Amino acid sequence: MALAKLDGMELPAAADMHVHLRDGAMMDLVTPTIRRGGVNTVYVMPNLVPPITTVQHALDYQKRLQALEPNVTFLMSLYLHPSISQATVIEAKKAGITGIKSYPAGVTTHSDDGVLSYEQFYPVFEEMERQNMVLNLHGELPPSAGEDITVLNAEEAFLPTLKDLHRRFPKLRIILEHCTSAAAIEAVKSCGPTVAATITAHHPFLIVDDWAGDPHCFCKPVAKLPSDRRALLKTIVSRNPKFFFGTDSAPHPAATKRADRFAAGVFTQPHAVGYVIDALEEGVEMGVLSAEDVTREVLEGFLSGFGREFYGVGGGDGEERIVLSKPTEAVENLLRSEDGAVEVVPFRRGRMTWQARWK
Amino acid sequence: MALAKLDGMELPAAADMHVHLRDGAMMDLVTPTIRRGGVNTVYVMPNLVPPITTVQHALDYQKRLQALEPNVTFLMSLYLHPSISQATVIEAKKAGITGIKSYPAGVTTHSDDGVLSYEQFYPVFEEMERQNMVLNLHGELPPSAGEDITVLNAEEAFLPTLKDLHRRFPKLRIILEHCTSAAAIEAVKSCGPTVAATITAHHPFLIVDDWAGDPHCFCKPVAKLPSDRRALLKTIVSRNPKFFFGTDSAPHPAATKRADRFAAGVFTQPHAVGYVIDALEEGVEMGVLSAEDVTREVLEGFLSGFGREFYGVGGGDGEERIVLSKPTEAVENLLRSEDGAVEVVPFRRGRMTWQARWK
Repeated sequence: MALAKLDGMELPAAADMHVHLRDGAMMDLVTPTIRRGGVNTVYVMPNLVPPITTVQHALDYQKRLQALEPNVTFLMSLYLHPSISQATVIEAKKAGITGIKSYPAGVTTHSDDGVLSYEQFYPVFEEMERQNMVLNLHGELPPSAGEDITVLNAEEAFLPTLKDLHRRFPKLRIILEHCTSAAAIEAVKSCGPTVAATITAHHPFLIVDDWAGDPHCFCKPVAKLPSDRRALLKTIVSRNPKFFFGTDSAPHPAATKRADRFAAGVFTQPHAVGYVIDALEEGVEMGVLSAEDVTREVLEGFLSGFGREFYGVGGGDGEERIVLSKPTEAVENLLRSEDGAVEVVPFRRGRMTWQARWK
Repeated sequence: MALAKLDGMELPAAADMHVHLRDGAMMDLVTPTIRRGGVNTVYVMPNLVPPITTVQHALDYQKRLQALEPNVTFLMSLYLHPSISQATVIEAKKAGITGIKSYPAGVTTHSDDGVLSYEQFYPVFEEMERQNMVLNLHGELPPSAGEDITVLNAEEAFLPTLKDLHRRFPKLRIILEHCTSAAAIEAVKSCGPTVAATITAHHPFLIVDDWAGDPHCFCKPVAKLPSDRRALLKTIVSRNPKFFFGTDSAPHPAATKRADRFAAGVFTQPHAVGYVIDALEEGVEMGVLSAEDVTREVLEGFLSGFGREFYGVGGGDGEERIVLSKPTEAVENLLRSEDGAVEVVPFRRGRMTWQARWK
């Protein structure tokens, strides 16, 4: 156990700045697992069916989530859509909604209503800049963007768009969500302090070979090359506040993973913090990191402080605390609702994982 | 329909120089579909469980196949394994066995007994050269070959091994099986006339995006980039006798495709010739090929003549003939054994396909 030194370490509660909590029975199943993962603040994705494009829908959804788990702060978002106007942005800000998420059309789960061109949204972005709201980007070009665009280069091919948006709206806070490639990391570094990126719980474990044959390791953006994985691991320990935690936990019914056409998404919510420690430990065992790289300051910043600071939300240091506990339990093979109607397979089922216990 | 001109075209029966026919109930189900695909000659892979490493096992297997389908020529192979000696090669040649297939350990279905290092087999290769037997290479380096080897570059990383074997055994007939990349095509072209390659029925349709989310498009080697797909299509119509047809049809029980860990292999046997025409038609519709590229000579060579010539077997022109028929039927959704115990999902289920009817 390369990171035994972390056993018993106390940390601020984690903030998971990218979660999919779904709705209905799936929401009922996964929302109570947020705190099990060591997390007390989440940024909630708006890709429900239909997507959340109105303030009222977002507030109703937040109320349902809050009823299920009163001890989590749910930061809410809207889904970037032609129906969203400058007035919507102003109304959203007043109602306490934090940001707007942009999905390029057709790249991932429930992105059918997504963006075809950003230009039509420039007035919305201007208003977001004025209102100090966050723009969350699913940073991939869709296949329609060119005959050589694939799941492997779609993120890198999106980076000029990221840079262009940053140039046009330099004060707009932008997050390149779930970044997966060394190229994306470099692009985010090269931008000003208003541009940040989230790193998931699963990409630091994965390369293309892992999802070749395993639907539970398949997500969008896909995991890429070993060099990209190494870049993610090194970035986590770099203490660069531009990079913080967002699991992109994306539950799908187990049956949609064992299918002729299987869903994109990796479910990590119940072990959010544990997986990060597991991944860093694997990084040390592989020789990509040294045990010395993984410090309290690294974990405090990546798991909690950097994200809270970028979003301007509290709930971190000085408030709720978690304690890391070395692996004594394996990840469950399945999460199942009480009536058995909903089943979800978690990432790394059956494997030992670090725990985050509440102090 | 970009290739309507092919409707009614008469061709020599196809030779499918790379098939997996399995054993037992699966063999019973798929072997009778060979002729439906317009094929009367097949080169049979030896990766049964346990693998075929003895002449007797190969002959027994051939007898079972021949009993199921008397109107197909089954060319047999052994599985390269430490138990195979120069004496085995001599015995195999005498018994009418055509070649020996090498699987690098751990890269695909039933490759656990595969090759870790080629050096130990040099005496076997020398004897194969003397006996004029064919060496069939699954041309991928295993992940253990280096931390940056992935399913995407494993074939390209193998090409120096191919060239080295060709340099050491210049008269040994070598086939780089199921080549998937522009780099592999160039490497095969750069070798002498004793080195050839097969191209499958499915890779000319596929890129990485197709198997991201679809277990029925997942095989090893994996489909790669759009540029690789274009190179395959162009190579098929290039009339280069180094490149000929081998479907790599690989049936797996449907349940092993809809699974937490799904099997590698695409099942194409019943529509072998039809798929090739479909793929070329897509190539024309995409603008990669022109309709003029797809001639009778192209199809005769790729589907039948080049493979038969390389293997030195007859059964082509002047003997059995097939007639191409434009798509009027869709690929079946499922192949099922009469007792329902075995089910296989064919490639491009539910989509229209060209037919090869027997004259």
